[in-house]
Amino acid sequence: MAKKVYKKSDFPVWEIRRFLEPGPIVLLSSSWKGKYNIMSMGWHTVLEFSPSLIGCMITSANHSFGMIEKSGECVINIPTTEIMEEVIGIGNCSGKNTDKFEKFGLHPQKASLVEAPLIAECYASFECKLVEKRLLKDYNFFIFEVVKAHAAKRPKYPETMHYRGDGVFMISGKNISRRRKFRPENL
Amino acid sequence: MAKKVYKKSDFPVWEIRRFLEPGPIVLLSSSWKGKYNIMSMGWHTVLEFSPSLIGCMITSANHSFGMIEKSGECVINIPTTEIMEEVIGIGNCSGKNTDKFEKFGLHPQKASLVEAPLIAECYASFECKLVEKRLLKDYNFFIFEVVKAHAAKRPKYPETMHYRGDGVFMISGKNISRRRKFRPENL
Repeated sequence: MAKKVYKKSDFPVWEIRRFLEPGPIVLLSSSWKGKYNIMSMGWHTVLEFSPSLIGCMITSANHSFGMIEKSGECVINIPTTEIMEEVIGIGNCSGKNTDKFEKFGLHPQKASLVEAPLIAECYASFECKLVEKRLLKDYNFFIFEVVKAHAAKRPKYPETMHYRGDGVFMISGKNISRRRKFRPENL
Repeated sequence: MAKKVYKKSDFPVWEIRRFLEPGPIVLLSSSWKGKYNIMSMGWHTVLEFSPSLIGCMITSANHSFGMIEKSGECVINIPTTEIMEEVIGIGNCSGKNTDKFEKFGLHPQKASLVEAPLIAECYASFECKLVEKRLLKDYNFFIFEVVKAHAAKRPKYPETMHYRGDGVFMISGKNISRRRKFRPENL
């Protein structure tokens, strides 16, 4: 069955915390020598608004590790619970011997500033360039700058999946605003 | 009104992803020269199981920054939605001129291996030692080793708050297991 494709628009790169700071599982897409790959990842953090920086721990055993390190690029995609089974499948096979776009019925879309593709079925996609490798050797820790962001306009807050380990996911719940309790500089 | 105190037991340090990987706001407690402080933080990631490593971006404008850098220690505490208003209050005042434990009616508890205190009203607390500072100057990025972990036994998955920016929180939703879909080495 065809999966929903999210029509995405330009989104300010300095506002992507809205999607990443709550801690969802993301899909990293990469490109190297004409081949695409996808991996799932839960170990990431926002590091700065502007430039828009994201830190990611990518195990070197992943096929994506070399593709991302060599190309110096990737796309961080936010999947919703609609493709939960695909996200789990992606995390449980290797790009070494699998075309994951084909296997899981996902569609690559051309990015603007990187060779790695956006994933059409994901709610948001952030085009990233590798900017910091000092902790790569000791910690497999990459810092990327988000150079262009795309996000669907609706729903404002998609239902995302958050991994707890041991095969268990927390599904994002309700959103509540406490804006009036914040000092403006702390929003 | 007295807030609920969580009775916590020893918890394996290599299993703390259960609480941190879903991406909740955490409270960092610190100690320096006989004074305690607390800050709220949303920019963190698990980096390794064993040793148990956590990466955290702590803005240098925070009063806690100097206390944590100088002492080389902190405790990462997981608050539940029961103390949501306190968490917001903590993020909107400075330890420079406020005793946050007193102001917000929270209670410090003695840790085992660090001087920084556990927060009695938090569901889980992880005693941390600073192990990596290479990215401190350029990115305010600390890597801590969790040297001892404490967590309440029930509920297994507490209701946590996840920040989206702009005063909006996502509240953790239901938990679902897809364990049978995982390869054992990927759990």
